[in-house]
Amino acid sequence: MTEDERYMRMALEVARLGEGQTSPNPMVGALVVRDGHVVGQGAHLMAGTPHAEVHALRMAGDAALGATLYVTLEPCNHHGRTPPCTDAILATGVRRVVVATLDVDPRTAGLGVKRLQEAGIDVTVGVLEEEARELNRHFFHRVTTGRPYVIYKVAMTLSGHVAASNGHSQYVTGVEAREDVHRLRQVIPAIGVGVGTVLADNPELTARHLDTGVRRDRQPLRVVFDTRLRTPPTARLLAAPGRTLVLTSERMASSPAASRLAAQGDVRIVPVPERGGHLDLGAALAAIAAEGANALLLEGGPTIAAALLQDRLIDEVRVYVAPKLLASGLPALSGALTQSMAEAVSLHGVRTEWLGGDLVLTGRVQYREGV
Amino acid sequence: MTEDERYMRMALEVARLGEGQTSPNPMVGALVVRDGHVVGQGAHLMAGTPHAEVHALRMAGDAALGATLYVTLEPCNHHGRTPPCTDAILATGVRRVVVATLDVDPRTAGLGVKRLQEAGIDVTVGVLEEEARELNRHFFHRVTTGRPYVIYKVAMTLSGHVAASNGHSQYVTGVEAREDVHRLRQVIPAIGVGVGTVLADNPELTARHLDTGVRRDRQPLRVVFDTRLRTPPTARLLAAPGRTLVLTSERMASSPAASRLAAQGDVRIVPVPERGGHLDLGAALAAIAAEGANALLLEGGPTIAAALLQDRLIDEVRVYVAPKLLASGLPALSGALTQSMAEAVSLHGVRTEWLGGDLVLTGRVQYREGV
Repeated sequence: MTEDERYMRMALEVARLGEGQTSPNPMVGALVVRDGHVVGQGAHLMAGTPHAEVHALRMAGDAALGATLYVTLEPCNHHGRTPPCTDAILATGVRRVVVATLDVDPRTAGLGVKRLQEAGIDVTVGVLEEEARELNRHFFHRVTTGRPYVIYKVAMTLSGHVAASNGHSQYVTGVEAREDVHRLRQVIPAIGVGVGTVLADNPELTARHLDTGVRRDRQPLRVVFDTRLRTPPTARLLAAPGRTLVLTSERMASSPAASRLAAQGDVRIVPVPERGGHLDLGAALAAIAAEGANALLLEGGPTIAAALLQDRLIDEVRVYVAPKLLASGLPALSGALTQSMAEAVSLHGVRTEWLGGDLVLTGRVQYREGV
Repeated sequence: MTEDERYMRMALEVARLGEGQTSPNPMVGALVVRDGHVVGQGAHLMAGTPHAEVHALRMAGDAALGATLYVTLEPCNHHGRTPPCTDAILATGVRRVVVATLDVDPRTAGLGVKRLQEAGIDVTVGVLEEEARELNRHFFHRVTTGRPYVIYKVAMTLSGHVAASNGHSQYVTGVEAREDVHRLRQVIPAIGVGVGTVLADNPELTARHLDTGVRRDRQPLRVVFDTRLRTPPTARLLAAPGRTLVLTSERMASSPAASRLAAQGDVRIVPVPERGGHLDLGAALAAIAAEGANALLLEGGPTIAAALLQDRLIDEVRVYVAPKLLASGLPALSGALTQSMAEAVSLHGVRTEWLGGDLVLTGRVQYREGV
């Protein structure tokens, strides 16, 4: 590992401090190094607060003069909720800037580096680039596609069932796996379910500590895919802490039922165009991205999961497999039709881990070319 | 590890040489050690041929005098197809015998050790006992229950499908996983399927080398569970190398259709009592054990697998999971009803391994107490 890689790895670690709380912004870490000493470090922690470079340079103070700045993402060159980082960098007398990866935000992409180079700063780009892009894959996905990065999470038995014949799914997995889901609900900015799940399970869809109950401080945006607006005003998720979006058809969004629902709490009814009698799922996801969510944790049920898969809108799958067998029950996916084994979508880069007695598989979805 | 454990481990390794070819007998390994040197070793390789102890003592010759014999299973004390091993041992002047585990065959259980002790030999029992019982779990299961140890093997997608909507299952998994199934078909003495699988897939159910085709030399006993005798006389498995049993109702076993089937090759039609309109599965398994099979590899389909599971007759599960998703298809288990998650049967001691791009989970079935 080179000296640059060593410092960039530290900057990537610092960036992770913001995991789950920077949306719609990326996670960014920065390090200021002079004469072989780290003299400043910073992370971007929340949208609207200073960027990582600014924190790191402030900490370095006068020591930034002639130093090297390591930053995991190209410094911004535009006025957003904070002034451009390029200005801040130029004001400090930093001699060299090392960037892991260029930004994809069109307001910055390449322009931040260009500005620094034109001001005479020695700029290196591409140190641990792959790790940096992986770290912010949710952000990069949203900026390039206009949709959140969709992670389909499902807990099932080894026989492929998400619930028993009586419809109950409590509990497929053990306590460690369920705690992990609550951790995900804190680091993924939005959770989505189909209205079928609301009607069948009436979940709260909150991030909880399994021992002490619902967190009041930090809740994901809840999203219900509900073409015909069947979510009842008494649904528990409407009254739970945090915001709820109900995505429905344009016709239903202007109905009296919509007004009743919207009066139930921090609830917004969002009209989405239809396609073939169902919500246009690409448009539905764009509406979620517009709320500032870089990623969506899809928690089911089988119908919405199969529909999103068929429209090639699921990016990652996380399956909690309980090593037990049911002789019958509800499948993980249903509704859409795949005819042949060749139509299966593959996962790649699959990782496995044990959480208590359950096995977790995580992989990226690889859709087939040209189909 | 003690000296005894070290030699017993070697004897267990030797025993494994007979894997898949000793049924209905167990695998047994033996070692003769004198003055810190291995002076003889042997394995039981096939029913009707000499036992491990006899091979090892023959190899040791005069060196057996005053030596220690390590044997992975209690030496037999009865006349079977070969004379009692206890006689052979006593004839050699062996001073000490170390046994991993007592036999469960009522003709020997404890009697072999007793005979040796009464003859003045120093006998130690229980060295690596757990490993020795694990090695012969198929044999022990058959002797104690009268049924083969049933291993349910299934290849499915991560979405829980064993076939696509068009009914085709070729191929769920990659070449490495399929080669592993052919390896299993060589080491498990019998393969079972439901008649539904015969009708849907018309499989040959032979052990094959994937590159060079069907082995002529070594084939498992094929078993079809077929209550109403729907197996067509043209079924490929009837003409394939090796023997086939068709288990059917007593009424159908004496029908003209049965005679036609039996004329197709090395085929036997075996009558099995019915229970509730289906084969009594316990009796069906007893019929397979009577053919000398210590274990049965159940290869599906969903109906027979669910029925055996419901009757608590599946002992081990081996699932090949292909990391891909189908939006619809055929489930691994179907027909029998489990109502609630509490009725799921758990697997314990689950091991995972990757075979090419597929994940394999293997575990023992743990049925709930008193249900």
